Amino acid sequence: MRIVWSIGDINGIGPEIILKTFLGLRETEHSFLVVGSYTALEYYRKAFDLPLELEPVSDASAVADLCRTRCRVLPVLSVAEPETITPGTISAEAGRIAMLSVAAAAELCRQKVCDALVTAPIHKEAIALAGFKETGHTGFLGKLFGVTSPTMMFFDPVTKLRVALATIHVPLEQVPLLIRQMDLAGFLENLARSLKTDFGIDRPRMAVLGLNPHASDGGVMGSEEKEIIVPAIESLEGVLQVEGPFPADGFFGAGRYRMYDMVIAMYHDQGLLPFKVLAFDTGVNITLGLPIVRTSPDHGTSFDIAGTGKASERSCYEATILALSIAGNRKKTELSS
Amino acid sequence: MRIVWSIGDINGIGPEIILKTFLGLRETEHSFLVVGSYTALEYYRKAFDLPLELEPVSDASAVADLCRTRCRVLPVLSVAEPETITPGTISAEAGRIAMLSVAAAAELCRQKVCDALVTAPIHKEAIALAGFKETGHTGFLGKLFGVTSPTMMFFDPVTKLRVALATIHVPLEQVPLLIRQMDLAGFLENLARSLKTDFGIDRPRMAVLGLNPHASDGGVMGSEEKEIIVPAIESLEGVLQVEGPFPADGFFGAGRYRMYDMVIAMYHDQGLLPFKVLAFDTGVNITLGLPIVRTSPDHGTSFDIAGTGKASERSCYEATILALSIAGNRKKTELSS
Repeated sequence: MRIVWSIGDINGIGPEIILKTFLGLRETEHSFLVVGSYTALEYYRKAFDLPLELEPVSDASAVADLCRTRCRVLPVLSVAEPETITPGTISAEAGRIAMLSVAAAAELCRQKVCDALVTAPIHKEAIALAGFKETGHTGFLGKLFGVTSPTMMFFDPVTKLRVALATIHVPLEQVPLLIRQMDLAGFLENLARSLKTDFGIDRPRMAVLGLNPHASDGGVMGSEEKEIIVPAIESLEGVLQVEGPFPADGFFGAGRYRMYDMVIAMYHDQGLLPFKVLAFDTGVNITLGLPIVRTSPDHGTSFDIAGTGKASERSCYEATILALSIAGNRKKTELSS
Repeated sequence: MRIVWSIGDINGIGPEIILKTFLGLRETEHSFLVVGSYTALEYYRKAFDLPLELEPVSDASAVADLCRTRCRVLPVLSVAEPETITPGTISAEAGRIAMLSVAAAAELCRQKVCDALVTAPIHKEAIALAGFKETGHTGFLGKLFGVTSPTMMFFDPVTKLRVALATIHVPLEQVPLLIRQMDLAGFLENLARSLKTDFGIDRPRMAVLGLNPHASDGGVMGSEEKEIIVPAIESLEGVLQVEGPFPADGFFGAGRYRMYDMVIAMYHDQGLLPFKVLAFDTGVNITLGLPIVRTSPDHGTSFDIAGTGKASERSCYEATILALSIAGNRKKTELSS
């Protein structure tokens, strides 16, 4: 498999965790490429005295050959070189390089030069300063590929917890209406397909959380469960193994998530509050619904420790492992169909 | 101190956890009383062969004397005796006894015959069947004492995590408006007072969570942070140590809650999702804003294991210990003021 990393914000921990992840994976049979800035990667390689060599390349298609012959070398395709690198600061230049990197890396996946994209963390304010309207990866990639609403999913390889979000980066007050308007049954079917294709789970068990406290306690607090969620689940009876809606707090408190292959949360914090508590350090973010494979660590640019060498590559490593696994599973499905 | 337990749903694990908690505390200098049903308690005492004696009393004021002389005996004041006891089932009779028990026990605290109320779990559907309009303890006690909006707070003695909820049992769609309408600064001041009076924390550090995902990321997703939460926090500058609004998922994921004496969540699941994951088995629920001290275990009636003897009294024990501590602290404050 051929993995491409987008560099992320060059003033954050992105370059560092990419370099450290490469150190852990370069002896495998896979090939790797970073799209972003050679100068920035070399800056951090030197600063942390990492035992590896970088090689600037101008043509991504040469990457596979390069890797096969000289595995200690990490090829870097530059989209631009920064004037300055100042760890821990917000800059328009870093924002611009981050997004150009994502776009170029995604294009390599679209052209099947690479098999999967792993994105290092970007900084929303830097992106906004650079003049980009979409300041998050998921929205940016959605627009790039003409996908209206890609799905955010999270996976923790330690607990095996998988959480998908029915709504993502929207004000909380819009959530109930969006849940009413979406095709929840179709959404669940897409998730089941992804569990099969991407994770190799043939008959996944899925748990849907309620929107309201206590999943509305039979309608005492809110009606979305009765009017929207229950009918969606019932419409899939005999088709999929979907259960719920469960009161979210008790579901996680009692550890019931362990009985399911995926938990579907109705909104951002409902899914990410328990996920980040349970999957600290090893959580991975996956975007579903795109024509390419895309994963990323589930943390940010960590400006507070950028440039110190203290960043843990654990989540980036796990994101890369998962990207390799999903890309492999999708190839198997293509071959067998 | 004199603790009164309300019996909870007699078909749930309430009677069992009360009896087991008494076994752990009867050698202390405190006195205890159960209000509810002698028959139900004796039924479970026999079923689990617990080494203690129950004594029916008709007058709560005799309790202290009884305890002082015969500590192995647990006095029980009956509000009614059930026709049947069927562990694990919903019944109107059990719902009626549960709520009569809460009302009578609260009255004993109001009259200062007892110093604190610990409520065993009730079942909302049983309460509704019995014809009660308020099916939760917090709302029921609020009405009983003429308090419009009592505050739900949770405490875990192991992690020392304290979480208070700005809104409680309401549909999610009402939350943003309720946050806009409430006196958030006044709410925070009341919480600080309770931390001082009830927990003995003189200058508490408080953390407020954002309402929207990522605490709105500077206004990109929602405006309640900018318009409501930030001004409320700023208005308390120099008065209280309040920080935020923090993105809820990252705040808990990174363990930042450890730096604060209390975390204020904007809605039910935002506070209880992380709390129940972090405080499994030891969490305690406290109602603030009432003229009496009231705590309870933070779990339900557990009908699935009722009558088996397998229920853990841990949360009920911790709720009782906390009730003793708060009642003691309030007495100290009364004496010194």
